[in-house]
Amino acid sequence: MLRISQLLVDLYGCGAELDDTGFLMGVLEEAADVVGARIVRRVAERFSPVGVSVVLILAETHLSVHTWPELGYAAVDVFFCSEGKDPHRAWEVIKGALRPESFEVREIVRTIGNKGE
Amino acid sequence: MLRISQLLVDLYGCGAELDDTGFLMGVLEEAADVVGARIVRRVAERFSPVGVSVVLILAETHLSVHTWPELGYAAVDVFFCSEGKDPHRAWEVIKGALRPESFEVREIVRTIGNKGE
Repeated sequence: MLRISQLLVDLYGCGAELDDTGFLMGVLEEAADVVGARIVRRVAERFSPVGVSVVLILAETHLSVHTWPELGYAAVDVFFCSEGKDPHRAWEVIKGALRPESFEVREIVRTIGNKGE
Repeated sequence: MLRISQLLVDLYGCGAELDDTGFLMGVLEEAADVVGARIVRRVAERFSPVGVSVVLILAETHLSVHTWPELGYAAVDVFFCSEGKDPHRAWEVIKGALRPESFEVREIVRTIGNKGE
């Protein structure tokens, strides 16, 4: 049994380029690296006319960002199912890169594994 | 501005085969279909010795499942950034397929877009 924190963050008024797939991929890679998470798959999808989804599948679950560049909005999920990988450190990397004017962080504690153990 | 509900669900004691990538992909596809979400990318990853991650990138954000077959545990995220797509309907499909003995559903209301609008 493992109790971990997942972060769901809404970012408003981002100063960064939210329609740049390569940039967003790099941001998530850096966020994974800072906590020592292992990236097993990189997925990026561009929408028409604008908008990007980037997901990193990790050995420790996932990191995702979905953007609405026309609104300056991004939705970020930070989910590390491993002890000692602080999602707040990853979020700090993402915040520094996307430069939101404001944001809302929700921290959800999840019990991974067998509740009885 | 759009307010939507995201569901984070922990499933314990699942009766279904949690190491079967094709099965899990089919479950998420059905969950997307039931609400009329449009699938733009299917991603599946198997871990050694066991464990599966399946993510569907949707026009309306994402659906994901990560499994620990040895524990009968699965972590499901249902995130539809679109009005009229009820995440509870998708969760009912997933619950029916994975057959957990118990589960915990967290519903997080997110404000998508521009908070001021």
